Amino acid sequence: MNRYDDKPAHECGVFGIINHPEAARLTYLGLYALQHRGQESAGIVSSDGDRHYRHKGMGLVADVFHEAELNRLAGSAAVGHVRYSTTGSSSLSNAQPIAGDLTMGPVAVAHNGNLVNALELREDLLRQGSVFSSTSDTEVLLHLIASTFADTLEDALGAAMRRVSGAYSMAVLYRERLFGIRDPRGFRPFCIGRFRDSWILSSETCALDIIDAEYVRDVEPGEIVELSSAGIKSYRFAERQPLAQCIFEYIYFAKPDSLIYGHPVYAVRKRIGEQLALESPVDADMVIPIPDSSNVAALGYSKASGLPYEIGIIRNHYVGRTFIEPQQTIRDFGAKIKHNPLPGLLEGKRLVVVDDSIVRGTTTRKIVKMLRRAGAREIHLRISSPMVMNPCFYGIDIPTRTELIAANSTLEEIRRHLRVDTLHFLSIEGLRKAAGGVPGGFCDACFSGVYPVKFAKVGKDLLEESARQPSLLESLSRMEAR
Amino acid sequence: MNRYDDKPAHECGVFGIINHPEAARLTYLGLYALQHRGQESAGIVSSDGDRHYRHKGMGLVADVFHEAELNRLAGSAAVGHVRYSTTGSSSLSNAQPIAGDLTMGPVAVAHNGNLVNALELREDLLRQGSVFSSTSDTEVLLHLIASTFADTLEDALGAAMRRVSGAYSMAVLYRERLFGIRDPRGFRPFCIGRFRDSWILSSETCALDIIDAEYVRDVEPGEIVELSSAGIKSYRFAERQPLAQCIFEYIYFAKPDSLIYGHPVYAVRKRIGEQLALESPVDADMVIPIPDSSNVAALGYSKASGLPYEIGIIRNHYVGRTFIEPQQTIRDFGAKIKHNPLPGLLEGKRLVVVDDSIVRGTTTRKIVKMLRRAGAREIHLRISSPMVMNPCFYGIDIPTRTELIAANSTLEEIRRHLRVDTLHFLSIEGLRKAAGGVPGGFCDACFSGVYPVKFAKVGKDLLEESARQPSLLESLSRMEAR
Amino acid sequence: MNRYDDKPAHECGVFGIINHPEAARLTYLGLYALQHRGQESAGIVSSDGDRHYRHKGMGLVADVFHEAELNRLAGSAAVGHVRYSTTGSSSLSNAQPIAGDLTMGPVAVAHNGNLVNALELREDLLRQGSVFSSTSDTEVLLHLIASTFADTLEDALGAAMRRVSGAYSMAVLYRERLFGIRDPRGFRPFCIGRFRDSWILSSETCALDIIDAEYVRDVEPGEIVELSSAGIKSYRFAERQPLAQCIFEYIYFAKPDSLIYGHPVYAVRKRIGEQLALESPVDADMVIPIPDSSNVAALGYSKASGLPYEIGIIRNHYVGRTFIEPQQTIRDFGAKIKHNPLPGLLEGKRLVVVDDSIVRGTTTRKIVKMLRRAGAREIHLRISSPMVMNPCFYGIDIPTRTELIAANSTLEEIRRHLRVDTLHFLSIEGLRKAAGGVPGGFCDACFSGVYPVKFAKVGKDLLEESARQPSLLESLSRMEAR
Amino acid sequence: MNRYDDKPAHECGVFGIINHPEAARLTYLGLYALQHRGQESAGIVSSDGDRHYRHKGMGLVADVFHEAELNRLAGSAAVGHVRYSTTGSSSLSNAQPIAGDLTMGPVAVAHNGNLVNALELREDLLRQGSVFSSTSDTEVLLHLIASTFADTLEDALGAAMRRVSGAYSMAVLYRERLFGIRDPRGFRPFCIGRFRDSWILSSETCALDIIDAEYVRDVEPGEIVELSSAGIKSYRFAERQPLAQCIFEYIYFAKPDSLIYGHPVYAVRKRIGEQLALESPVDADMVIPIPDSSNVAALGYSKASGLPYEIGIIRNHYVGRTFIEPQQTIRDFGAKIKHNPLPGLLEGKRLVVVDDSIVRGTTTRKIVKMLRRAGAREIHLRISSPMVMNPCFYGIDIPTRTELIAANSTLEEIRRHLRVDTLHFLSIEGLRKAAGGVPGGFCDACFSGVYPVKFAKVGKDLLEESARQPSLLESLSRMEAR
Repeated sequence: MNRYDDKPAHECGVFGIINHPEAARLTYLGLYALQHRGQESAGIVSSDGDRHYRHKGMGLVADVFHEAELNRLAGSAAVGHVRYSTTGSSSLSNAQPIAGDLTMGPVAVAHNGNLVNALELREDLLRQGSVFSSTSDTEVLLHLIASTFADTLEDALGAAMRRVSGAYSMAVLYRERLFGIRDPRGFRPFCIGRFRDSWILSSETCALDIIDAEYVRDVEPGEIVELSSAGIKSYRFAERQPLAQCIFEYIYFAKPDSLIYGHPVYAVRKRIGEQLALESPVDADMVIPIPDSSNVAALGYSKASGLPYEIGIIRNHYVGRTFIEPQQTIRDFGAKIKHNPLPGLLEGKRLVVVDDSIVRGTTTRKIVKMLRRAGAREIHLRISSPMVMNPCFYGIDIPTRTELIAANSTLEEIRRHLRVDTLHFLSIEGLRKAAGGVPGGFCDACFSGVYPVKFAKVGKDLLEESARQPSLLESLSRMEAR
Repeated sequence: MNRYDDKPAHECGVFGIINHPEAARLTYLGLYALQHRGQESAGIVSSDGDRHYRHKGMGLVADVFHEAELNRLAGSAAVGHVRYSTTGSSSLSNAQPIAGDLTMGPVAVAHNGNLVNALELREDLLRQGSVFSSTSDTEVLLHLIASTFADTLEDALGAAMRRVSGAYSMAVLYRERLFGIRDPRGFRPFCIGRFRDSWILSSETCALDIIDAEYVRDVEPGEIVELSSAGIKSYRFAERQPLAQCIFEYIYFAKPDSLIYGHPVYAVRKRIGEQLALESPVDADMVIPIPDSSNVAALGYSKASGLPYEIGIIRNHYVGRTFIEPQQTIRDFGAKIKHNPLPGLLEGKRLVVVDDSIVRGTTTRKIVKMLRRAGAREIHLRISSPMVMNPCFYGIDIPTRTELIAANSTLEEIRRHLRVDTLHFLSIEGLRKAAGGVPGGFCDACFSGVYPVKFAKVGKDLLEESARQPSLLESLSRMEAR
Repeated sequence: MNRYDDKPAHECGVFGIINHPEAARLTYLGLYALQHRGQESAGIVSSDGDRHYRHKGMGLVADVFHEAELNRLAGSAAVGHVRYSTTGSSSLSNAQPIAGDLTMGPVAVAHNGNLVNALELREDLLRQGSVFSSTSDTEVLLHLIASTFADTLEDALGAAMRRVSGAYSMAVLYRERLFGIRDPRGFRPFCIGRFRDSWILSSETCALDIIDAEYVRDVEPGEIVELSSAGIKSYRFAERQPLAQCIFEYIYFAKPDSLIYGHPVYAVRKRIGEQLALESPVDADMVIPIPDSSNVAALGYSKASGLPYEIGIIRNHYVGRTFIEPQQTIRDFGAKIKHNPLPGLLEGKRLVVVDDSIVRGTTTRKIVKMLRRAGAREIHLRISSPMVMNPCFYGIDIPTRTELIAANSTLEEIRRHLRVDTLHFLSIEGLRKAAGGVPGGFCDACFSGVYPVKFAKVGKDLLEESARQPSLLESLSRMEAR
Repeated sequence: MNRYDDKPAHECGVFGIINHPEAARLTYLGLYALQHRGQESAGIVSSDGDRHYRHKGMGLVADVFHEAELNRLAGSAAVGHVRYSTTGSSSLSNAQPIAGDLTMGPVAVAHNGNLVNALELREDLLRQGSVFSSTSDTEVLLHLIASTFADTLEDALGAAMRRVSGAYSMAVLYRERLFGIRDPRGFRPFCIGRFRDSWILSSETCALDIIDAEYVRDVEPGEIVELSSAGIKSYRFAERQPLAQCIFEYIYFAKPDSLIYGHPVYAVRKRIGEQLALESPVDADMVIPIPDSSNVAALGYSKASGLPYEIGIIRNHYVGRTFIEPQQTIRDFGAKIKHNPLPGLLEGKRLVVVDDSIVRGTTTRKIVKMLRRAGAREIHLRISSPMVMNPCFYGIDIPTRTELIAANSTLEEIRRHLRVDTLHFLSIEGLRKAAGGVPGGFCDACFSGVYPVKFAKVGKDLLEESARQPSLLESLSRMEAR
């Protein structure tokens, strides 16, 4: 799906629930609500206290799970996961949750994020006799837990987490208990919900809404929460460190109907659009978004600028995974498969076009061409994020620097390449200000290059060499990821 | 998909192309652009002048066709079809195009509409020795063509059409020629496009856009056009009658990026929203659409009323065909699977909520409840169509009168049932006015009860008895529709 | 499957049952027992008296039908069909039974045989306005029935059959009645069975055994039987003509556990082997069959010759339809995939190898090579049929004359080509004698060239031109067979 | 398949090859030839020296692997596995080969046998921090290898094997080398083959034949062979112990065209039939086998007794995995689905019926009833194995003692239960004598109760408690086997 969008890709969505007779079914619903965070694979592990039951598959939640699978996933506790889509590294063995039998019993881990020292940990574990069956860094976490030899799982989790560096929001299922863990800087979102006597963990609150659960609070950075029929317990495995919450969740990833880091995405995203209008006003006839991810920011721009908001491009939502392209060249095929400009409306008009981000610029350029052919007289492109100039090592799939248009061109070069009349990227300061209602610090390394967590033995250079960061383990591994 | 929307259902989308080396592939793209007109089945028949090649299947275009199928569909001419989705009558044998071998050679028919005398014609044909292999009224057309014994196909088509009553936009593939036919009142849309030396027929212009073709004109009511490598020829098989173009295309069915009856849907739909605001203004804090079908009308309401437009409900686009529901009751599950109101934004607010139509009212009621739970203080529901009080016999799947809430309740009863503070349906006059930039008459029988084409032997009473109109043949047939 | 055997191919197996609450399930079992007669496609049409229900698919019976399909096939009457496997002409629309809605109601036809005037009939019917949706000659029968305009189905069937020339054993389902029809010369087998109050039609008796039914009698040549809850009625539509029962059923096609034409296949086949030994004795160490089709004849040879019977070649029964061949050459791959000679047993031995027929000789030659490599000192090949020198126009798929090794070579040339020490084909007289316990005449046109039924407008020449006879309609048709 | 046979079930078939450009394709062919040893799942891991590639799936070899999968399995070395079919424990995660990444690199293990101390080893490994992802004892082997910390894989394999008790023939793929290991008593067969510069490991020689390879020798009990482009190396990891080769391979499991323990199965199996005739002659009209597994023994009985051999029962080879049974009772349905007695032949006859073994007796009883209904006057049942009275702990799936008819009844009781006139089981002495051409000792614990290898902590009692031996790990495990 993402291939026609040229956007950063999600790593994952995580969902878990305990103390509910339909644990697997509600996890299925939760994953469906988190589907935008990952379309490559989906998996659920459930527990009846005694045994673990598991099913995962490639594809969308509704394709992977049917009555038969859900019926087999017995028990009152479950954890589930959706994984993002890339072309090369599709792999069932890397699909999550990763489940294993440990000396303490069966454990399942679902994880959103990226461990920056996964490779070193994996090599240490291999030297200690561990056997790996995937190239997923989540499997590293499972082995790490097994190798702590702690008396209780909560101690094991704490000990394991203290060896890990990076970004992670993680749900761990053990018998009928569910543990939620978030790294000390809180890179990825992770929240706690409640529905009567059931407790829930989820990457976003929109998955709480679908099952009638209420938002309780976020898992704190550096905290382990233990959810069970006895309620909620909290452990702290690390000192609180300066926050580094991923700001891109507000710009693009999270659904507008979610609370992220406790705040409504819609409101922040709209403020971002308003800020964009303040920073870069222009005399034009209308504001149009590149749907759907820029709708809210465009509305903000419209509000702040007073220019009318129009739905100038219609998006087709039926794109499947295996679209067959014609052999002949259709102009701007890749953009067209999802977008069609409105006939009539745009003719002779001066447009403010709002997009959320530019990665390679390929799709944006095609959309601009389509708008020109639809008769647009002027195109003023406004990007509701700063220039993406650096890879992310904390769980987002951003291309390497050589592919990032902003890392290799001046603003004017980009403007000319995209063939727009004017171009403006939101300033980092403007972004921080728009997100400012939200307390605490953000990670904006992809814009600023300031990385909150440093790399150890496997340094930044190596990381950048690897084709795309999240596939580091894969690219260095000796097992094909299947 | 439709089951969670409670909307009238499309009958079909039709696409055909001649004189192009990738005829089947472009038809695949055209059908993909028309996917919103039918998600139940998809089919393509191609011709290399000598032989016909065919493939059809249940499901979305991208699921039914893959490389292997498209490669097999040889030839420079093709016709394709998407069919709408209902629960009961799924059937591969009813999927279109319907192809057959006639004495003149192989012929394939793809059809959007409904023949009101199909049953009588079918019985006449049966008595003459015809053998039917489906319950589709399109198969009736094929047999009718075969039974005219005319010398040329264009004569046969004219003779056949003169026996037919009802609504139809039809593409007929014969060797390397493509015929487009539209009933004398022009109930359903049907347009002609061109790309270099290739000619195209399509239900909507959005399918021309995706393949870079330009809109030439509509097929005229009562006209047969013949497209071939020699260009376009026109035949008239009936006197022009008062127009009865389906006005619901402007309200709900057509994509906003299409021209319908030669006019942009977006502009008409926005005028409809403006008219709604004029008819029924209210003091409120914001206007929100039920996405996505009411987005444009809500924007029109916002513009005319001056109230701010907000995206107050987020729609999930990942709903598959076989969604597994939990066994326990989740509040308003059916609406929730697609819609989630924004947290925070709606709290304490007075909302104008714009929806395009109300059929049974089931989903609308659930959405209103969700908005109340999200904190809405007042809900003023504005419907951008008049009350749907009558079934359609011209190709739209509207429930029987007993199920239509507007046919069985007063406005006040509906308002109380939906639990909204105020409720207004667009007036028929207002609707006509909003569509008034468009010349000529419309069919608004579903609102007004005035049916432009009368019924013969199988009268209106029988039609209404049948569970749902488009399935009349099916319900009376002695063959299960498979 | 057949592609690794180089044998004549079956056309079909037919099964029908009435007056049983599990009609479709028993038809499924019957088709499973007839699976050897066709592996390409399987289909069942059932009737509850009011409506017909149908399901067919490509593949084996157990792959096409599952619980869901069988549950949907309601009613107390059903007819089913298995169709043989060729490479090119796979086609779902040609799969049987062919079902249609006629003026008298829904009718389904399942047919084993070949109509020699199908093309003329089809063209007549096309000229009368019939529309064909397949290239199957069974569809011709259905249209023929529709075009008789007889008052009752039995009259219509009689009238239709009088226009048809060729070989056919046919089951016709109409409401809750089942008609069995066999051509006046009785080319193909067809028997009647009974289980309590249920009546059955089947191509072979082995399908009666599996459902505990008893064999009643054969459908007589020129007879129509009508099976219903009222019992059995018999109509005669043609004078009895000299019998022309396919003798190849005894040699190869029928299962050894069936009665064919009222006589046990096993006994006839064993007599064939005995006759072969009488005609062509040889001094050797053992007799081995090419399994499994030659097992019984080899046993007969062993008995008559006194030479010991050994299972010298083991057959692998797991061959699927889509076997992937290695790209490098494996010696005699095609034969090896099914056959492996025994190590040790054959070394230095003089073998009598019994095979049932030679068509192209390709597989036989490979098997001979395998036996040589296994150490066989002498190989005396004995074929339990005469030389196949002519195509069949009555329902068997035999290659064209140019491909038949016996039509193009002397006995000595064949022997040298196959690299055997001696070679003998059963004489036609010997074959007749072995089958002699069975009253009446046989068709042995494939051996003798004497065709019992002549060809009309579309003459023998044209037939021979067509690549393979049963696909005549297909090769001349203007519709791809899908 | 087995469910209609009531026979002991195979554990597995193993195949591996090195130094061949089409390693995965030849492994596919080898597994196809070993398909009779396991129909539940199939898997292949290949190696290009640098990386491992893997694919496995549930079902038959030809269903699991297609062009795409085989193309992906790059490299010149490969190992493959087929696993037997039971109802409950189907599981993809238990399918083999089991592949993992170890500190020395990627290793894949395919294993036929059963470790009697797997549970203890697994618990030891868990306590050391190992994480298990399946309930397969093959995964135990992989972890054991990882935990030896030996410098070379050959040392690691030796060290690991010295900790293991039980029966195993195992292939280990490591980069481009292939290791073959057989337990010190040689329970399961395992042979080495060669094709030019390629070396092969296989459970049976029939898999060598299909790829034109020649049989070199067996892997010796207690030996590790290392196959590489450098040729063959041999290591000894254990003293040679008294041989305990599974004698059931000769009776039932192995294909007649294989050499097992270096000797032709066909010859031994025929001698078994001869011995049976010597031990238990009877005055009768014919000898018939229960096909196909008793064909050879019946031939031996016929030869030794002078009674004629007849194919009295025909077997249907089209049984799929998911056969739908009718809801009404068909007499002896389970037996009928595969077997049909010949009409005519058996009527009034005195039969010697040869079967290879009796486990529960359920199917045998049904077949006897069928023969009676086919008119058999006397039935003398001769079983070509001794009474199966004990479970197997060395890799064969035999029901628990409570289900074994011979463990709970006298000979006379069994005879009466089966309703045969006389009944004889081959004596253990007779069996040994028949297998006597083969040097060395056999394991016949299932007949004699003499178990060559003792049990440790998890004793025999516990083993017998577990429903079926091979599923011990599964039944005790805390992870569902998926």
